[in-house]
Amino acid sequence: MPVQNPVKIAVAQLDIIAGHPDVNAAKIISEIHKSKDQGDDIIIFPELAIPGYLLGDEWENASFVKDCFLFNNEIINATTGITAIWGNVDIDETLRSEDGRIRKYNAAFIAYDGNLLEKGCVHKTLLPKYREFDDPRHFYSARKEAQDYDWRIEALFNPFKVKVWKEEINVGLILCEDMWSDDYTVNPIAELLKKDTDLIVNISCSPWTWRKNNKRHSVVRSRVKDHPVYFVYANNVGIQNNGKNIFLFDGNSTVYNPDGSLHKVASDYTEEILRTTLWNGHNPSEQSPEVSRAQDKEETYNGLIYGIRKFFSVFPNQKAVLGLSGGIDSALSATLLVHALGAENVYAINMPSRFNSDTTKNAARLLAQNLGIHYTSISIQRSFEETVNEIESSVFTRLDGSNQITMIHLAGVNKENIQARDRGSRVLAGVASALGAVFVNNGNKTETAFGYATLYGDVNGALAPIADLYKTEVYELAAFINAKQPVIPQTIFDIPASAELSADQNVDEGKGDPIFYPYHDKLVRAFVEFRMDPEDILKLYVNGKLGETIHCEQLLIDDYFKTAKQFIDDLEHKWRLFKINYFKRIQAPPIIAVSKRAFGFDLRESQNGVYYTRNYRYLKAQILK
Amino acid sequence: MPVQNPVKIAVAQLDIIAGHPDVNAAKIISEIHKSKDQGDDIIIFPELAIPGYLLGDEWENASFVKDCFLFNNEIINATTGITAIWGNVDIDETLRSEDGRIRKYNAAFIAYDGNLLEKGCVHKTLLPKYREFDDPRHFYSARKEAQDYDWRIEALFNPFKVKVWKEEINVGLILCEDMWSDDYTVNPIAELLKKDTDLIVNISCSPWTWRKNNKRHSVVRSRVKDHPVYFVYANNVGIQNNGKNIFLFDGNSTVYNPDGSLHKVASDYTEEILRTTLWNGHNPSEQSPEVSRAQDKEETYNGLIYGIRKFFSVFPNQKAVLGLSGGIDSALSATLLVHALGAENVYAINMPSRFNSDTTKNAARLLAQNLGIHYTSISIQRSFEETVNEIESSVFTRLDGSNQITMIHLAGVNKENIQARDRGSRVLAGVASALGAVFVNNGNKTETAFGYATLYGDVNGALAPIADLYKTEVYELAAFINAKQPVIPQTIFDIPASAELSADQNVDEGKGDPIFYPYHDKLVRAFVEFRMDPEDILKLYVNGKLGETIHCEQLLIDDYFKTAKQFIDDLEHKWRLFKINYFKRIQAPPIIAVSKRAFGFDLRESQNGVYYTRNYRYLKAQILK
Repeated sequence: MPVQNPVKIAVAQLDIIAGHPDVNAAKIISEIHKSKDQGDDIIIFPELAIPGYLLGDEWENASFVKDCFLFNNEIINATTGITAIWGNVDIDETLRSEDGRIRKYNAAFIAYDGNLLEKGCVHKTLLPKYREFDDPRHFYSARKEAQDYDWRIEALFNPFKVKVWKEEINVGLILCEDMWSDDYTVNPIAELLKKDTDLIVNISCSPWTWRKNNKRHSVVRSRVKDHPVYFVYANNVGIQNNGKNIFLFDGNSTVYNPDGSLHKVASDYTEEILRTTLWNGHNPSEQSPEVSRAQDKEETYNGLIYGIRKFFSVFPNQKAVLGLSGGIDSALSATLLVHALGAENVYAINMPSRFNSDTTKNAARLLAQNLGIHYTSISIQRSFEETVNEIESSVFTRLDGSNQITMIHLAGVNKENIQARDRGSRVLAGVASALGAVFVNNGNKTETAFGYATLYGDVNGALAPIADLYKTEVYELAAFINAKQPVIPQTIFDIPASAELSADQNVDEGKGDPIFYPYHDKLVRAFVEFRMDPEDILKLYVNGKLGETIHCEQLLIDDYFKTAKQFIDDLEHKWRLFKINYFKRIQAPPIIAVSKRAFGFDLRESQNGVYYTRNYRYLKAQILK
Repeated sequence: MPVQNPVKIAVAQLDIIAGHPDVNAAKIISEIHKSKDQGDDIIIFPELAIPGYLLGDEWENASFVKDCFLFNNEIINATTGITAIWGNVDIDETLRSEDGRIRKYNAAFIAYDGNLLEKGCVHKTLLPKYREFDDPRHFYSARKEAQDYDWRIEALFNPFKVKVWKEEINVGLILCEDMWSDDYTVNPIAELLKKDTDLIVNISCSPWTWRKNNKRHSVVRSRVKDHPVYFVYANNVGIQNNGKNIFLFDGNSTVYNPDGSLHKVASDYTEEILRTTLWNGHNPSEQSPEVSRAQDKEETYNGLIYGIRKFFSVFPNQKAVLGLSGGIDSALSATLLVHALGAENVYAINMPSRFNSDTTKNAARLLAQNLGIHYTSISIQRSFEETVNEIESSVFTRLDGSNQITMIHLAGVNKENIQARDRGSRVLAGVASALGAVFVNNGNKTETAFGYATLYGDVNGALAPIADLYKTEVYELAAFINAKQPVIPQTIFDIPASAELSADQNVDEGKGDPIFYPYHDKLVRAFVEFRMDPEDILKLYVNGKLGETIHCEQLLIDDYFKTAKQFIDDLEHKWRLFKINYFKRIQAPPIIAVSKRAFGFDLRESQNGVYYTRNYRYLKAQILK
């Protein structure tokens, strides 16, 4: 039964506020009323549009969950003369979940004319549990129900008969991961298509990740290839978090033609009601759908600006405080903050010690001028020296009668860390609290990986906007911004990346960080995003395939490491840094996730030290023999 | 077929090192050899005894996982003349997991005489996913296999025929959660008991939680009630972590008699081979099993001492640095450190400002004397004043041509926080790094809940040993320790709990923290451990059942809140503090988990602000009308 008559649908791409069902429900009800006035047949809202998705263990709060569930009544009441589809938690108080608590399902509801349709609630079948997802922790899956009741899997999937004028169409309802079934043994879309489905509706709460939308388009094409059918993907906008990570919900709700081509696409990061008419054999859309052409850098830029703006929006004022060193990380951070919040809300502090060059100090000031932000300079030299003096002149006495004395000696690296902590914890935290501003962290992903930062020094702040960008990506994004409007002084690109914490890191002498970013960025990416082990890296190196596999020029690698021993020494050094410095990430601030794997709740780690597989050790011994 | 002939079993309660399969495998093989020499029939090792359990997403490292799996070969080879049962990861490279990676199972293996038994590998059926557990994230369950292959659930459960002399006994093999089946729709033990099982072996990697062992004994009794059978519970010792939390594995491996009574029990926190002979109708154990009689405070004390000692054991030296304020938290912390590491390894610093009384300064010094630790005093008054001066004399200039000026004014609370950060980030972090010592956090669970602590001030350190104890539990544990050997001066118990950061917190005037610990500790526990919401609390208050439900004297509550309005104002104030201050917990150090729910990975939170259910709002309006 194809779509014989025009079907007017509205996809409500709303900004869903996690944990605030009252706000979300009010918005949904208001949109249903507007949709009726517009003469729509069906209005579709995203997954978990009442409670939001990333709530952590607030899903265990039974009063909250019931409160969310009961908002269904108001929504159902609002559906006079229109069909509405929305996501909410479904509960069954007669059954327990496997944690002993009230049984909960991640569900899609469908109502018409003041009533739920018969069996008008679909439970999510495929529950994601990778990356930031914890669905099985909170929800019981339809698959498990099938097993409990000894149903065949097919029995789970049945389209709804939805009234459109005097006709009916068969609408198949699925939730988010149900369409991403390649790695599962159940394929919900295929099951629905066996049963005369005219329209598949996927309600999602799907965070943006790099190149995800293109991937989605190709998945839809492959799903409907043998059985053409309209396909609606409804996603929300907004940000949601699980503390350690902030995820961006880009919307990009899409209506696909029966051949899987794009029929109409909603904008990125904008609340929008995507209205269209489905009618087989006709294409009533007057023009080609406006697809976001944003690619890579621009997508990342847009996501970060949106994420920063939304993160700040819950604070009483929108002020940001950050350190401005004259290096590229703080330059990018400041520029993003200005673009997100306006220059009038950004307060930057340059905090030189005697190791900071005029080059970087001048660059910082020039950047502040270009951006038109609030700026000050507070030297840390005197307080740093006093701290060093005070610590080194302190003496521990053992109070066991022996009166044994312990002197305290600060090594070079200890003094470097004192400078960082003086900046971060004494000056920045103090100023931020006085201004009632949000203290922003400037760390990038490479330094986060290797722990090339000081706890309570650089590793602090309420938000880490660029900590999911490798150092080379920081440069690239800064260049992308400058290409539109040059604000970041060229010096900042030209000087070597340097912490400027000692004479060994003098930028005017071309000295900088002990990291070879063009290669080490890719190595970190291999560890974090490709989940590779030194064994994998060493095998690739031996086979001459490392460069192409990790997307780094092989010549660079061969140039940087003259011998296999040098390569192995560096690999082990970096693997060790990566593993050991997790202790800093435990205490690191929230990161806006923009890569395929961000540090934080997205990549769950344990402090288990360093391990090399037996294959690695064998291979290494062979090479060094 | 009951156990007709004596069966000599050995339960190898080993200290499993997570992420170090080489170390674990060597230990296992060595124990198999020793067990053969002892003439044992069966030796049993814990769940995931090769890889360890809490590895975070290192389970995605395919090289590592294969490396773990391949250690099976050495173990199988070692089983000449003996049956061994052990936990390891099982892999199937022909199949994918639902994250698209190599298929992995949490498995029990059984081998005899150099070969795996036929189908000698059992996959875990019930996968826990509450609290710290993430089993479905990493492992495919036997239940899902049954569904994929359309097997009936019963087909999963079959005892192994194990050779004992010239006889055979039927051994049913399950893993950890498989015995805790009350909240699941599958009961592995019941299924095995339908099939002539003579002996159930549960291999576990089960972290200690408060009163868990008593609960386990009663679960075993109920499982074998209608079908008496010997039951072996093999657990490991050691600590494992997922960054934010450190979990204690207490061992307590137990052999149960067929009626579920205790036959033999291994010690807490000790590597031990529990040897016994099973023989129906005979009880060859010469004496009653030595059950740990440690209860509550003692269990908590033992766990914390063990946890601290094991946590420090991986560092090159065992030195700890902490602040010693003369308050109860740092007193308990210091005492635990001394008991775990020895007084020679503990370095304590008193860091007074002008707000610190002689009472607390003297108490701190006296405690240091009683403990015989290294001690020094570093005043923060001058550096605090200089920081205040420096910040207040700094001026932001808006570099947009307007040259608009922003002065910086520090309010009282900003100055309090500067003191805390001066102590934590300037002095303690600096001294700890100079000594190469581990910087220890003194925070308790109540202050962690309400954010009554300063980021980069009190909220820092590499380990938070007492952050899973409420303030009243801190006093109780300190009193428990003093009852054995008085070390903590009585003054520290007598003065009010106070941060001593302002004149309003003068202990000599009886002023202290703005928290009514006897009630608020229980309120936090209701939020965190009972997962209650203000709606639940308010309902209980109205019904006069709050006290008994949260285990607080009702009289205390009624005395503290003279009116319902006062009660509600406080409830909302504390709920808000609890929710809002999660931003500090995101950056808090690792906590040793000893309660039924610890902050950290155990309790996953999101920064979603504060919400009150509609029922709560209605009830409140009724009450205040």
